[in-house]
This record gives sequence, C-alpha cells and structure tokens, in this order.
Amino acid sequence: MSQLPLGFRAAGLPRHDRPRPSRHGLAIFYSEMPASAAACFTTNQVKCVHIPIDQQALKKGQAQAILVNSGCANCCTGARGVREAKKTIDWASSALGVFRKEILVASTGVIGDFMPMDLLSEEIPMLSRKLLGDTGLHYDAFHKAAEAIMTTDTTVKIAHASLQIQGKDVRLWGCCKGAGMIHPAMTLSGKPHATMLAFILTDLKASPLELRAHLGPATDESFNRVTVDGDMSTNDSVFLLANGMSGATLTTPAEKKLFYKALRGICIELAKKIAKDGEGASKFLEIRVEGARSVRDAQKMAMTVATSPLVKTAAYGEDSNWGRILAAMGRSGVSFDPSQVDISFGTLCVFQHGAPTAVSADKAREPLKAKEVTLRIQLHAGPAEGFYWTCDFTGQYVDINARYRT
Amino acid sequence: MSQLPLGFRAAGLPRHDRPRPSRHGLAIFYSEMPASAAACFTTNQVKCVHIPIDQQALKKGQAQAILVNSGCANCCTGARGVREAKKTIDWASSALGVFRKEILVASTGVIGDFMPMDLLSEEIPMLSRKLLGDTGLHYDAFHKAAEAIMTTDTTVKIAHASLQIQGKDVRLWGCCKGAGMIHPAMTLSGKPHATMLAFILTDLKASPLELRAHLGPATDESFNRVTVDGDMSTNDSVFLLANGMSGATLTTPAEKKLFYKALRGICIELAKKIAKDGEGASKFLEIRVEGARSVRDAQKMAMTVATSPLVKTAAYGEDSNWGRILAAMGRSGVSFDPSQVDISFGTLCVFQHGAPTAVSADKAREPLKAKEVTLRIQLHAGPAEGFYWTCDFTGQYVDINARYRT
Repeated sequence: MSQLPLGFRAAGLPRHDRPRPSRHGLAIFYSEMPASAAACFTTNQVKCVHIPIDQQALKKGQAQAILVNSGCANCCTGARGVREAKKTIDWASSALGVFRKEILVASTGVIGDFMPMDLLSEEIPMLSRKLLGDTGLHYDAFHKAAEAIMTTDTTVKIAHASLQIQGKDVRLWGCCKGAGMIHPAMTLSGKPHATMLAFILTDLKASPLELRAHLGPATDESFNRVTVDGDMSTNDSVFLLANGMSGATLTTPAEKKLFYKALRGICIELAKKIAKDGEGASKFLEIRVEGARSVRDAQKMAMTVATSPLVKTAAYGEDSNWGRILAAMGRSGVSFDPSQVDISFGTLCVFQHGAPTAVSADKAREPLKAKEVTLRIQLHAGPAEGFYWTCDFTGQYVDINARYRT
Repeated sequence: MSQLPLGFRAAGLPRHDRPRPSRHGLAIFYSEMPASAAACFTTNQVKCVHIPIDQQALKKGQAQAILVNSGCANCCTGARGVREAKKTIDWASSALGVFRKEILVASTGVIGDFMPMDLLSEEIPMLSRKLLGDTGLHYDAFHKAAEAIMTTDTTVKIAHASLQIQGKDVRLWGCCKGAGMIHPAMTLSGKPHATMLAFILTDLKASPLELRAHLGPATDESFNRVTVDGDMSTNDSVFLLANGMSGATLTTPAEKKLFYKALRGICIELAKKIAKDGEGASKFLEIRVEGARSVRDAQKMAMTVATSPLVKTAAYGEDSNWGRILAAMGRSGVSFDPSQVDISFGTLCVFQHGAPTAVSADKAREPLKAKEVTLRIQLHAGPAEGFYWTCDFTGQYVDINARYRT
C-alpha cells in the first residue's frame, strides 16, 4: 500500500456508525500546517451555499481543513443556509484551532433541507478532538472519512499514488463520493453538474497557482467524463490540498509531467469508481468515439450516447441493440455521415460502413455480458477521439430515486 | 361521436390479431381520390429509409395511401432496406390500384432489423382487398388501423374534430402511436427525435402548401413538446392528408384560424396521449415555465426539467423534491436568477423567491398524488412562457427497454 501524504489527518463519522440511524455523515480533512489549495466547482447556475464561501476562502489559495457533511446539500436554503454554514466553520475553527478563512466546506445530500445543526454542534468539536488526538498516520481514520462522505454510494472510493521528485517521495491520497445526480462539468472558475465530491491531499510543495494549473485539466480528463444520470449537481466539488511536507517542488517540465500523471491517475481511478458505483448500476460502460473531426465533437457524441436511457437500458438487458446507439448519435448535434459509421462492442464489430454486419444478435450479446463493456464508435471523419464513462440503467436506479428522501 | 372524414378508408392488422404471435403490425390509410399531402419528419441525422422515399413522393404534394408497418423501423438497413421498402410500395400499388408515387410509407420498431418481407408480401394484398371491399365508413376499421401501428403502446390513440366552413361540415380524424424513444422535434424540412407516428386525415379541400402552413406550427405546438425518455427517434413522422371531399376551402383568415385550431386540437390531444402512455408511466406531467425572457428560454428549461431522470423518479415516488427541479433548471443553459424563482406543484407554492416556503414535505406531496400533475416554474424575468409534457420514470420503463427485443 502506498504511504499516506505526510502531515495530513482525517476523521469521519459515517452515518451507519451513529447510535441512532441517521442520514447524516461528517468528515474532516486536516493538514498540520496551512496548505496550498485549489478546487473545481460545478457549472450549475444553482449552487449550494458552500461554494461561494469556498470561492471566497480560496482567493488566498490557502487552507488547513475541509469540513464535509453528507446527507444535506445546503442548497437553495437562502440566507439561513449561509448563516448555518458559517456557524459550522466557527465551530470547526474553535475546535481545530484553525483560522476561519482556512476552512473549506463541502456538502452533499438533499437540496432544500437545512443542516442538522444540533447534531453538528456536538459532532464537529467531538470529531475535531479525535483528529487532533490522533498521532501518526492512520489508514483507518482516512477510510472512515471516505466512508462518512457517502450518501447512496455502496462502496468507499479511495485512490493512492506516489512518485519521486528530486529523490524525494511525494505522496497523493484521494477519495470521492458520488452515485446519483452525476454528470459533473466542473471548472476552476466555478461552473458544474452532479453531486460528486472529491478530496485529494498531497505532501508536494506547490503554489496555489501550480495546483490550479494541474487540477483543471486533470478534472477535465476524469470527473468531467463521468455521467450516471445526466443530472448535473449543484454541489460538485474537487479539492486539492498540498502541504509541502515532502519538501519536493516541481521545477522541470519532466517533474511537472510526472506529478500531473499521478494526479490525473488518481482522478481517473476515482471517476471510474463513481461510474461503477452509479446508483443501481450492474455494469460499467465506456463509450468511445473515434475518427471524429474534433475532440469536442467526439466528447459531445460520447456524452449523448452515455446519457441515453435507451442505450443504458439495453446495456442492462445485455441486448445488442446498436440501433439505439445510432439514434442517440443522430441527435447529438454532431454532424457525421451515417453511411461511414462502424460500431463495435468491445472488439466485435456489429455495424460497419452504415450497415449491419453478419454477426447475429445472439453472438453480439456476448461482449455485453461482461461487467465492464466498451462501446466503440468509429466515424471515419477525422483524427480526434473522446470517451465518456457511465453505467447501465436499472430498475434499482428508479427505486433508489423514487424513495431517496423517504 | 364526430363523423369520419368523407372518402377515406383504413384497415389494420394488429400484431395480436395474428394466428401466431408476432411483433409486426400492418396498417393502410387510403383516400378514394388523390389527396393533398404534407408531413413533418424527424430532425435526427440518422433516418429510417422510408423518410427520404416519402420526401421524394411529397415533392408533388399528393398522395392516396399510407402504408405503415410496426415492429421494424427499417432504419440503418442500407441498400437492402431501401429495396425492400420500394418492394412493399410495389405490392400496395398493384393491390390498391394507386400510383407508386402516391403511396407514402411509415415504420416503427427495432432499428437495424430487416422488414418481414414474407409476411408483407401476403398481407399487403390481403389488407388492400379488405379495404377496397369495405363500403361506407367504419369506425371499427379505423380503430383497427390505429391499433395496428402500436408497438409498446398500451392504448389506442385517436382524436376527432369537426368544424363548419362556408356552411359545409369539415371532418378531421387522427391517430398516433408512441410510448418510448419519444422526444420528437420534427420539421417540414425533415429534422426530429422519437418514434412517434401520427396520421391525420381530413376532407377539407386544400393545397399541399396550405397543409404545410398549418401542419408545421401545429406539430411545433404539440408533438414537439412531448418527451418520454429524451431519446429522439430516427422515424418520427406526422402525416396530413386532405382529400377535398367536403368541398370546403379556406378563404378568409377566420376560416384558416378555425381549421388551424381544430388541427392543433387534434395534435395536442394525440401528443398528450403519447405522454400519458409513456413506457411504464404512472403519471402525466406538465412542466410549465413562466416569466421567462423568451419562449425559447422557457421551452429549453421546460425540456431540461422534463427529461431529468431525478425529477421523473421523484414524481413516480410522489416525493416533493423540488431541489431536483432547481438542479435541472440550473444546468438548462438558460440564464436566470435563482433568488427570484418560485416553484409550485399545481397551485401549491413550495419554493418562493429563492427559498423554501413553510409548506411541509408531507403537505407538498399531496398534489403529486394525482394522475396528472403540473409543475410550475416562475422565473420573474420576463413575459414569455412555455411547457413540455412528459410522464414519470418507473422501473417498468427499464424493464420494457431492457427486454424490448427479446
């Protein structure tokens, strides 16, 4: 197992660890010294009250703790929501001994609900004490924090990486949550679509500007390519904290590339875990579009196919219904020549040059029986390619979302 | 019951009327004399082979019969699909004694499948003989035709109207099918998104140009505002035939308005029937957006909310989760001020000026228990309004579409 990044602590109170059943979880990520910080936020016009607070705090690019509550989105809660968010920051500030302006906040859960302030007023100090009392690095504590941010997730989502810079070890650790309302499109300037939250911690020494330069593209190449239901959230956020404890800095282009690769690797691993754990999912799907005129075209078409309920229900039924893929391609807004198109399930070509191949419907089902399926579209129109990750669409998704609140 | 339009006949062989179970249905609509004709077709770039054939035939604006097969979309079937479609036109032409160029064709069903030519070679002549042998107007025959075009539909969808022009009775009759892959966006020039087919017959005397002038806007104000799953079909078509048997023509603006109102009324009635019979649907939803800057904005936002899986599963669960409506609004691409928004379920306001009202979640569920629910969004940004019709999203939708082919 990789080592945890130096100088970080974490603590979590998952909802199922409470004496009484509750929808609420609480997690704290903490650095022993102020860290450089960067974040990407949802491009949804409707945003939870935490995002403007974080954007304000991030202007200096420095943070020492992130406070996460799960179960309540604190979104569309007006002035009361803002007051309450600031109150939780006050509590964390006193308990952790960290400046209010260096505490970031994140939340995920039901939009419109108010935060469970009674619970938080007790638990923030309690969890903070626990965290500060913890000496050394404890995987268990990080695992608990990753568990505590979960809502409809069924598995904890964690990724590690390490690299060597100037002979020094640099460590990265990340976790995320997200299973429904997943269609993120996050930017550094603050524009997104799903509740997914990700927290990435590293002991690299880097400026906030350097972090931003790496986090933006890494988010684009990972989280922004996942969709579960096409419903962009009001709360999507990816945070990156770098506390410098490794003493390593990025000086050469090769070092920057190495760090970017590690960061992107973590983001990709976490993003795929979100798609695999999509609400009700039984399969992971990668939709690849190749031979497009531009990456933008390829991404747009991959996204349209990845959000098509008919494609996703066919995947669930292991039905080789490639016609639904073509129908979705045709409404994607990307111009192409249907008579040039090839479609493959994995490596099995089922549609070639605009006509069905001789592969029987039964034979074509075979690749769809796997837990991970690649649907490959070749447009023969240009050099660009793109992809989207998603999952199949099952009756369980409907059950979960018809009942989530009740 | 309104009278059927004069001079039209219909015949149908629904799939459940066959001796052996089959996925295929066959219907013919026929006018005793060549009729003026207009049609709107899907804007999907991938189109069934029937659409270019119809577009060619419609250049003269005249038709005497429409041949409809259900169960096979005849889409993405290449040169063989075109050959086979033309073959069916040959058979109908001989059997009905109608010029090949005056026969329109429509199809709905599985994309990529070839037509059941053995079946059709027998049934087209058989059904044509039946139709020609029929004297007088028979509701039963029209009903059978409306039944024969159904695929996953659970109910026959028919609408009637009549009006008086210059003291003469003018009659309209229409039917349609559509339950899944429903998100039409049809234009006269041939651009859409779902398989829905509609056939409207009238004994008005009108030129093809007049028909086009009425059918385009009537389609926009009805079928193009329905979505079941957001998946635009390759086959969507609306046909309007006017055979002149009433002897009435439209001369004054008032008469044109009267006819337009009747035509639009039929289209709206049929369009709503599609949403109500959406695959697996338990509820009909009207999403209204008011106080928008432009109709385009209002429609775009209504459509985004109407296609949100989270809004639609909440409706199924009768969960007053208005936060999901706001999240969908926020990703619609329409610029608005969230702090000005009101949201009502029917007449019950649950969110006002950007904050939750005092209405409890339980109270807010009440209006959602009805079979027909209006979700009303007020943006307070301008004078424009728009709406979309849809249905809730249930586990049955998933079942139907995971298994449709098998």
